[in-house]
Order: sequence, then structure tokens, then C-alpha cells
Amino acid sequence: MVRHFLPDPVMDNPSYNFAAGPGVMPAAVLEQAQKEFLNWNKSGMSLLETPFSGASFKKLFQEVRDNLRQLLAIPDDYQILFMHGGASAQFSLVPLNLLGKHVKADYVETGYWSAKTMREAGRYCQVRVAASSADTGFDSMPNTWQIAPQTAYCHITSNETANGVQFHHDPDTGDIPLIADMTSDFLSRPVEISRYGLIYAGAQKNIGPAGLTVVIVRKDLLGHAHAATPSVFNYCLQAEADSMLNTPLTFAVYLAGLVFRWIESQGGLEMMAQNSFRRSARLYQVIDDNNDFYCCRVQPAHRSYMNVCFNLVNEALTEKFLAEAEISGLHHLKGHPMVGGIRASIYNAMPDEGVEALMLFMRHFAENYRSYV
Amino acid sequence: MVRHFLPDPVMDNPSYNFAAGPGVMPAAVLEQAQKEFLNWNKSGMSLLETPFSGASFKKLFQEVRDNLRQLLAIPDDYQILFMHGGASAQFSLVPLNLLGKHVKADYVETGYWSAKTMREAGRYCQVRVAASSADTGFDSMPNTWQIAPQTAYCHITSNETANGVQFHHDPDTGDIPLIADMTSDFLSRPVEISRYGLIYAGAQKNIGPAGLTVVIVRKDLLGHAHAATPSVFNYCLQAEADSMLNTPLTFAVYLAGLVFRWIESQGGLEMMAQNSFRRSARLYQVIDDNNDFYCCRVQPAHRSYMNVCFNLVNEALTEKFLAEAEISGLHHLKGHPMVGGIRASIYNAMPDEGVEALMLFMRHFAENYRSYV
Repeated sequence: MVRHFLPDPVMDNPSYNFAAGPGVMPAAVLEQAQKEFLNWNKSGMSLLETPFSGASFKKLFQEVRDNLRQLLAIPDDYQILFMHGGASAQFSLVPLNLLGKHVKADYVETGYWSAKTMREAGRYCQVRVAASSADTGFDSMPNTWQIAPQTAYCHITSNETANGVQFHHDPDTGDIPLIADMTSDFLSRPVEISRYGLIYAGAQKNIGPAGLTVVIVRKDLLGHAHAATPSVFNYCLQAEADSMLNTPLTFAVYLAGLVFRWIESQGGLEMMAQNSFRRSARLYQVIDDNNDFYCCRVQPAHRSYMNVCFNLVNEALTEKFLAEAEISGLHHLKGHPMVGGIRASIYNAMPDEGVEALMLFMRHFAENYRSYV
Repeated sequence: MVRHFLPDPVMDNPSYNFAAGPGVMPAAVLEQAQKEFLNWNKSGMSLLETPFSGASFKKLFQEVRDNLRQLLAIPDDYQILFMHGGASAQFSLVPLNLLGKHVKADYVETGYWSAKTMREAGRYCQVRVAASSADTGFDSMPNTWQIAPQTAYCHITSNETANGVQFHHDPDTGDIPLIADMTSDFLSRPVEISRYGLIYAGAQKNIGPAGLTVVIVRKDLLGHAHAATPSVFNYCLQAEADSMLNTPLTFAVYLAGLVFRWIESQGGLEMMAQNSFRRSARLYQVIDDNNDFYCCRVQPAHRSYMNVCFNLVNEALTEKFLAEAEISGLHHLKGHPMVGGIRASIYNAMPDEGVEALMLFMRHFAENYRSYV
């Protein structure tokens, strides 16, 4: 595969993009999109100019949805929706669409993003904390859950980008619908879809274009939307309209389709899981091997395979680390503003070479500045 | 300017895209976007992969907003928001954000889209019809308006894409905030912004990429959102967060910026207005010159400069017209499904050559099939 990373203007090294989102996209996908940017599907027009209600776009839309169904082995009793608004919109749209007559919903608190989700849900219902790892500074996913029997659903954030913790299994919540914000680890591993009532994911991590939001919902959960739900954000109405109640995000759907095919060509979700496990393990190894210099606050079994978050033992060196990384072509490594430190986001499209370059840099930096600790 | 339209595979003629939305984009914009698709701003990365919270994207975001403010001469007491969801989301978000303690809002009914807007608003408030042209089959914009004194606002659809009628002036509603869905004629002419309380526009007509939604709102109208409004769709919260409460539609904002600069380079909104007036007048002339064969149901003074809608007197010839147009490289001319007939959407990016090719085709088609009338 031809790499699109250009020589770094300063160092003549390749550049790597560790941004948390929008994040790195597969080079092959970007190259294909560039190639057909002015002439999609031999139409003489850009995909951007193609009417969504025409036969050619409708065919593409259907294919992209079918590809996703196949990739994730989504059973027939689940509807796939392509929506607008990003995952943050879903923080409100999940309770608006799913509460029905319920007044309570359960949430698992595991870090910055789940806490944010809970604050938004609290505007619509009584939020019960089914489990939380707040007491230990979100250093792990909580083991003990207590889900109320009379709850609308139980919500998790499958991967916390700011804190670097991740569920490495699909939780079992029995008859209570399990709702997952999978934005930051969507398509990074096979998922047992039948464990979930609903999965949502913003596209700007493992898919690419910000704005597009994938919702996978078990059909029996449809039809209970609150009266105030805007029609275009009503899951049931969008399901009935094949996600075309309003103009879909045409270019983002097209790019998503290219990414889905790229994942297939790379060996599917099994291979994505192997890649992210291997890549993250190597980075965590460098951190643990240099634990006088770097420190990862997350317990080993709960560390994210997508967002490797760590700190410098001497936090005064953080800015220097970021500045020297930048010069070495390792970009966007700054931790989430609410958490600080360093964050290396290694989504599906991050090549092994990027991880190796970061490992090398981390070892050199530790050697050079160890005396400052 | 180099044209990107490719030779038509059948006729060796150039292709022209008359789609109502997503519609034709400026060739120069698409060419620039293609050129820097893999390496935006000398970063070695695609804009699609660029984190929205980084300095380079934030700078771009601010520039795009400033360009729009300059282009439309938007006074300082108006906030510009870049939102998700398209105009259809605004059908709900306008009442959710602006009703406050009001229980009624006024709407001007002028065709398919305003009627749809009113149905959605009816889920949130009592919809008063301030004026309507339904009785005459939406053949004009209504002259006589009666706006209730105790109403939250008065809503218009400035251009009706399905019916081909357009306001050619900025209505004066006095102290009652005037709200306009300008999706389909946004940036096609200078607008007296101070006449409006709020203007919204989906981007997929005169800007380009579907999904991005521009909201221009007078600041004193902020702060009255209904409790059920999702936070990311709360105008006031997005205004406070500089439209970055959630990940913005980064690629769409970037493209919008290129389009804004292209409009400037073409002579600004005055020139867009001259172009669309001239182009539409020429098409209407062909229709009127052949009024035994073509018919435009809209009164001359109210005809849209953006969407030229007409019928064949012998409606049985409509499919043949569309098929032969397609062969001649004139694409997506089918009228809105609810209205039928022919629709030529001639947004800013439609070149004069496209209009001339359509005129030529229409004259030839009329000559060839006149005996069938």
C-alpha cells in the first residue's frame, strides 16, 4: 500500500497523526477519494454534487449499510441508521427515543465522556449510577454493577478516550437493554451485537468524517420517542424512511463505505483487534519498562487499545515531550485538556510504523531527560 | 477557470448538473479541495484527519465564519453558528429554541417546504397561518399578511425548491422576529440581515456539502430554549462554545470556506444575484416563447431565480424530455416528486454554458415534438 504521509518539512521523517478525533484515516481510502473526487462513479460529477435521491446515490447508500451489517455481523432484528449530529447529540437522543414511560435510566460511570453523557441524560430522566470507577480516579472499568429492575436501559461508554480505559468484553445486562457509546472503539474488534439494545458511534475515530453518526438499534426498542423529539432525530421515523427523512451526509457515507471495504481488505474486525492489541501492548510496554519516567494510571487489564494515555513522572517535562515529538513528526499527542498528560490515539488506520516511531521517540526522550526526574 | 465537467460518455458533450440538492459546486473549489486532499495546509495530513481542537483547524473555523460575516454584511449583534442536522432539523429547533413562553408562532405558507416546516412546528406550538398561497396552487408569494401581535415569530421559506417560487425582497415584520429558511437561495443575493431575527440554511445548495447548517441569529433571541432541547442543538450553548460544543463538521466547514472565497472572487453577492437573475430569465423566456409546449405555473414576478420549475403541456412527454436531456448531458432535471414536471436548479455554481445548453435542448425538443401536443 502506498503511504500518503509526506516527508516532514523539518526532519525529513514521515509524519504520524495521533489525534483523538477527527483522527488518522487509511491512506488507501484517502487516495481513492482523491482520485474520484471530481468524477464519482463515472458520472462526470463529484460525489459532493450528487443528489441524494438519485438512483446512483441510493444504491451506494444501501451498499454501505449492507457492508456494515456484514462487517459487524448485525442480526436482522437490528436496524442500521445513518444520522446527523455526532455522538454528543445521541447523549440526548438516546433518552428522548428510549425512555418511553420510564423515569429512570442506569449509567455506568467510567470517565470524562460517560460523566458528560450522564449530565445530559439527567436533563431527561433520573440517572442511576449502576457502577462507577470515580472513587479510584477512573483507573479501571468497574467490576460490581447494580442495575435497577425498573430502569429504561443501562448505558456504557465502551472506550473512554480521555482516560484511556476500555471494556474488553461485551457486558451482559440480561433483559435490561444495554446501550453503548462506541464512538472511539467502533470497528476496532468484533462485537456480540445481540448483547446490545443500541450502539451508537460518531464517525470521526475509526471511520473518519466528523458528523456522521451510526446508530444500530434493536427493532423492538423503536416507537417510544418523547413528543419533543425532532422528527429527523426520531429513530423510528428514520428507520421507516431508510435514514433519508432528511438529506443524509452523502460524502461522509461514501467515505464510510470506502473505510468499511478497507477494513475487509485488511482482514476484517479480527485483524483490527489483533492490530490494536499488538500496537497498544508495545506502547504500554515502553511505559512500563520506563516506569521511573513514564506512568500509566490505568490498571493493565483495563487499558484502552485505542487511546494510550500516560503521564511523565516529572510533569514539567510534558510540554518538552510534546514539542520534541512534534519536531520528530509525531503529531497531536497532547492529552485531553481535562486530564492532561500524553495521549496516543492509535485508531485502525495508524500503521505499525507510526507506533514504532513513537516507541523509539519515547525511549530516546526518557534516556535524554532521565536525569531531570 | 478550468472546468471540471468531463466529456459526456455518450454524446461527447459536457455534462451539467441541475440537481436540487446536493447540487453543483464550483469547479475551482472542487479542484482546490482535490489538490490539497492529502495534505492540507502543508500539514502532511488530510483536513479530514485534522483534529478540530487543534490550532490550525480553529484558525480556519474562525476565518470561515469571518468570511461569511463579511460576505453577507452580518452586523455584530448577530451570532453565526455552524451546526449539524440540515435545515430539516431546524424545523424543530427553531420552535424549541425560540418559543420561550409563547404558545403560538406565525408561518407563511408558500409551497411544499413551508408546509412541511409548519407540520413539524405544529408538534411544538400552535401554528398560525400569517399568509398562504395554497388557494392558488402556490403560484406566487402571498401579498396580504396578518401576523398576530402575540406570536413568537413569523417564519418564511425564502425560496421554494419544489414549487419554484421565491421572495425577491426581505419582508418587513416590524417588531415580530422574522425567521427564514434560506436553504435554497442562501448566498444568491445580498440580504438585509437586520430585517431578520434568524436565518438558517442547509449547505447542500449554494454552499455544497450536505449536513452543515448555517444559523445566523440575533443575539437578543438567545437564551429561551425549551428544557427538552438537546444541548448540542441549543443555539445559546453553541454560541457560548463558538459552535464547538461538539465536533463540528470539519470538512464541510472547510469546503464552505472555499466556496465563500470563490463567491468573493466572482464579484460577491451582487454578482451572484445578477447571474441568477440573468440565467433564470433566459430559461423562463424559452418557456414563455414556447407556451404552447412548455408552461410555468408561477406568476412572472414570483418565479424563483434558483429553481426553474415548469411542465410540458403534454405531460406524457415528460419522461421523454428527461431521457433525451440525460443523453445530452443535462442531468437531474426531474421535478420534485410531490409536484412533478421539470426542475432546473441553477445554483451559483451553474455556469452560463449549462443554461445555454439547456435552452438549446429545450428549443430543439419543442421543435421535434410540437406535433405531439
